[in-house]
Amino acid sequence: MEPGGVSVSAVLPAGGSGERLGGATPKQFCAVQGRPLVSYAVRAMERISWISDIIVVVSPENIETMKTIIEKYGHKRVTVVEGGISRHRSIFNGLKVFAEKEFSSHLLQKPEVVIIHDAVRPFVEEDILSKVVMAAKEHGAAGAIRPLVSTVVASAADGCLDHSLERARYRASEMPQAFLFDVIYEAYQQCTDYDLDYGTECLHLALKYCKTNAKLVEGTADLWKVTYKRDLYAAESIIKDNLSQEVCVITDANETVAQVGFLLPESLKSQIKVETVSISQSRNDSHLQSIFSGQYYNFVCVNDKKCAIQETQQLVHMLEKSDILYPVVLISVYLDISGNNSFSIGMEELASIKKFARETKKKNILVYGLLIQYKDPSLLQETVNSAAALIMALIKDRNPELIGQLLVA
Amino acid sequence: MEPGGVSVSAVLPAGGSGERLGGATPKQFCAVQGRPLVSYAVRAMERISWISDIIVVVSPENIETMKTIIEKYGHKRVTVVEGGISRHRSIFNGLKVFAEKEFSSHLLQKPEVVIIHDAVRPFVEEDILSKVVMAAKEHGAAGAIRPLVSTVVASAADGCLDHSLERARYRASEMPQAFLFDVIYEAYQQCTDYDLDYGTECLHLALKYCKTNAKLVEGTADLWKVTYKRDLYAAESIIKDNLSQEVCVITDANETVAQVGFLLPESLKSQIKVETVSISQSRNDSHLQSIFSGQYYNFVCVNDKKCAIQETQQLVHMLEKSDILYPVVLISVYLDISGNNSFSIGMEELASIKKFARETKKKNILVYGLLIQYKDPSLLQETVNSAAALIMALIKDRNPELIGQLLVA
Repeated sequence: MEPGGVSVSAVLPAGGSGERLGGATPKQFCAVQGRPLVSYAVRAMERISWISDIIVVVSPENIETMKTIIEKYGHKRVTVVEGGISRHRSIFNGLKVFAEKEFSSHLLQKPEVVIIHDAVRPFVEEDILSKVVMAAKEHGAAGAIRPLVSTVVASAADGCLDHSLERARYRASEMPQAFLFDVIYEAYQQCTDYDLDYGTECLHLALKYCKTNAKLVEGTADLWKVTYKRDLYAAESIIKDNLSQEVCVITDANETVAQVGFLLPESLKSQIKVETVSISQSRNDSHLQSIFSGQYYNFVCVNDKKCAIQETQQLVHMLEKSDILYPVVLISVYLDISGNNSFSIGMEELASIKKFARETKKKNILVYGLLIQYKDPSLLQETVNSAAALIMALIKDRNPELIGQLLVA
Repeated sequence: MEPGGVSVSAVLPAGGSGERLGGATPKQFCAVQGRPLVSYAVRAMERISWISDIIVVVSPENIETMKTIIEKYGHKRVTVVEGGISRHRSIFNGLKVFAEKEFSSHLLQKPEVVIIHDAVRPFVEEDILSKVVMAAKEHGAAGAIRPLVSTVVASAADGCLDHSLERARYRASEMPQAFLFDVIYEAYQQCTDYDLDYGTECLHLALKYCKTNAKLVEGTADLWKVTYKRDLYAAESIIKDNLSQEVCVITDANETVAQVGFLLPESLKSQIKVETVSISQSRNDSHLQSIFSGQYYNFVCVNDKKCAIQETQQLVHMLEKSDILYPVVLISVYLDISGNNSFSIGMEELASIKKFARETKKKNILVYGLLIQYKDPSLLQETVNSAAALIMALIKDRNPELIGQLLVA
C-alpha cells in the first residue's frame, strides 16, 4: 500500500565490518545464491515505486565493490556514499546528500520521510515499509519491533545477575525505521560525539534530541538481521525456498512428448505451481517471450532428442534478454521413446553437454539433463513421478556443481 | 573438562508448542537431516560422561513420540517426564523425579548440580556445560549469556517508544543454566502460581526466592534457540556442514585404481579432511571395521567394476553394525579403463542400482554412483578434479532424492 502524498527516500547503512560472522568478508558483501546480500536489500527498496532515492553508505574501501554490484545487478536510483567510522556517522553521511551542498556534487531532492534500513536485512516487504513511513509522518519517527526471543538480563560489576527484565514489557528494536527527515537530521546535528561514536539506535536520538517518541510497529519474523554464519545459511535457504514456488514446463506438440508433457505437470503440481507451454503453438508468441522475461526461475523442457543442446540454446537466448538476478534452473528432459533396453551415450556427447552447461552457468543459468524412458506405458506414471521428484530436488537445491549431468528417472 | 567432584544431572524442557514456527509440529520434534531436533539435544548431553541422568519433559500427548525417539536413536540415561501447562511447571516436574517419591515410581539419585537446557538448542558443547556447572557449584546458580543482537526498547501504553536500553549494559539470557539442586528446587517450591504460569526465567526465581545471584557465563554463538523456520534451516545447514568435514576414500590394490585412489584424495584435501584405506591390505583388519563404526559419515569407494553393487553391499553391511545417527554418504566411483568412446549402460542395470540405493536409504545410507573415464592420462588430473568437485557437492548436499544416480566426472 502506497503511503499517500509523502515523498520518501531510503538510507541503507552498509559499512559494518561483520566481525561477528567470523569471516574476512563483511556480511553485507557475502554471496547468497551467488549475489551479495546488500543487493537483495537494495532490490527490496528499489522495487517499491514510491521510494525515490536509495542511498547506500559503505566504508571507503568498499565503494568500488558497491559500484560494481550496482552495475552488475542493474540497480537503479542508487547513490553510493562514503561512510564514517561508526554506524551513526555513516547514517548521518547518508542523510547529508539530501541537505548539504558541499557534501555532494549532486544534491538530491530532500524527502519528507526517510527510511533507514540495514543492508543485512534482505527480506523487508512493502507492507512494513509503508507502515513505518505512515507512522513516521504522523509521529515524526517510527520503527519496527519484534518480541524478545530471550530474556534480557542486567549484570552487576562482579559478572553476576543484577536483575532480569520482564519479557512482556520489552521489545527488540529492528529495522526498517522511518523519520521525518527534519527530525532525524536535526537529531544528528544536535547529538554528541559520544552518541555518534558509540550509539546505534536512531529512535533513541530522535527521542533525546527532538523529543520525538517513535511509534513502534510490530514487524514480521523475516525482518531479522543477518549477524552470524547461521543467518547466512538461513538466508540462503529462504531464498532457495522462494525460488522454488513456480516452474514453467515447456513441451512440443509431438504426441508422446505431449503425453509426458501432460503427466509431468500433474505430478509436479502437488509440490509446486506449474505453468505449461506448448512451444509449437506459441513459438513466436509474445506470451512465450514474456515467460522468459524474469517471471520464472525454473524451466523444464520436454523433448525427444537425446542431446537437445540446440533447443536448450534457444531457450537460453530468450532468457538472457532479461536481467537474471537469481540462478535460473533449466532442466532438459529427454524422453527416450526408442524402446531400447540399453541406454548409450558417447563420452564426447556427454562432454559437450557439460561444456555447454559450464558456458551457460556464466549467464547464471543452471542446465541439467533428465532422461525418461518411455517403454512400458503401464510404468509411465511411476517413471514420471520419479522424474518429478528429481526435478523438485534439482530446483530446490540449485546446485551449481551438478550442472551438465544427465540424471535418469 | 570435567567439573571435579560434583554429581550432575540434566533437565530438558521439551514441552513447547512452537507456535512461532508456524507449523503443526512443535519445533523440538521437527526433523533435521531426518532426525528430530530433541534427539540432537539429548545426544549433546548423553555424550558427556559426567552427566548422570537426563530428564526430558514433554507434554502428555508427546510422551509416546519421545519414547519412540529414545528407542530409535538408542538414547541412554534418559527419563521421560510429563510436563505441565507452562515452561516453569514442566521444569519443576522434571526436578521432582529427583525429590518426590510419590511423583515417580523410581526415584532418581538427587544430583548436587542440575543443568537446565532447552530441547531446541541442539549445539551445546561440553565446555560451556562444564563452565555453568562449576559456576553453579560456587555461586548456587549460573547461566549462559550472549551479547544482544538488537537494541531493546520499552514501549509506553500508547505504543510509542518510552525508552531504549543501553545495549552494552544488558545481555540475552540463554541456556544452558545450572543450579545447586537445592537452590532451584526450593525456588520452585516457594514461588507463586503467577511465577509458575507466566515466568520463564529460572535465574530470576533463584534470585527472587533464594537470594542467589547467578553467575553469568559468556556463551558461544551456537547456543541460539531454534525459534523460527529460518532457525531450522540454519540448524540443517550447520549439521550438514559438520558432517562434511571428513571423508574416507577406499581403494583396492589394482594399479590404475590405485593411481586414481592417490590423485582423488589429493584433490579432495583442499576442501575436506581425507583418510585413505586400501581395502586389499586391510580387508579383515580391525582398522577397517573401526572405520565403519561411526567415525566417518562420508565414504568414497574407487573400483573398476561398472556396477559395484556387491562391493558396495559389503560396505553397507559393515556400516549397518553401528548406530547411524546421521545419513551416511557412500559414493561408488567407477573407473572406466576400457578406453571406449561411448559409455553404455543397460536400463535394467540402472534400475537395479536405483533399487539398491532405495533399500540402502532405509538404513540411513545414501548411495550415489560416479563415473571416471580413464583414457587420456594427460587429462586424468582434470577429470579427477571434476570428480572431486562432484563428490564434495554430493557430501555437502546429502540429497536423498539423487541416490542411485550415476554422475559423470
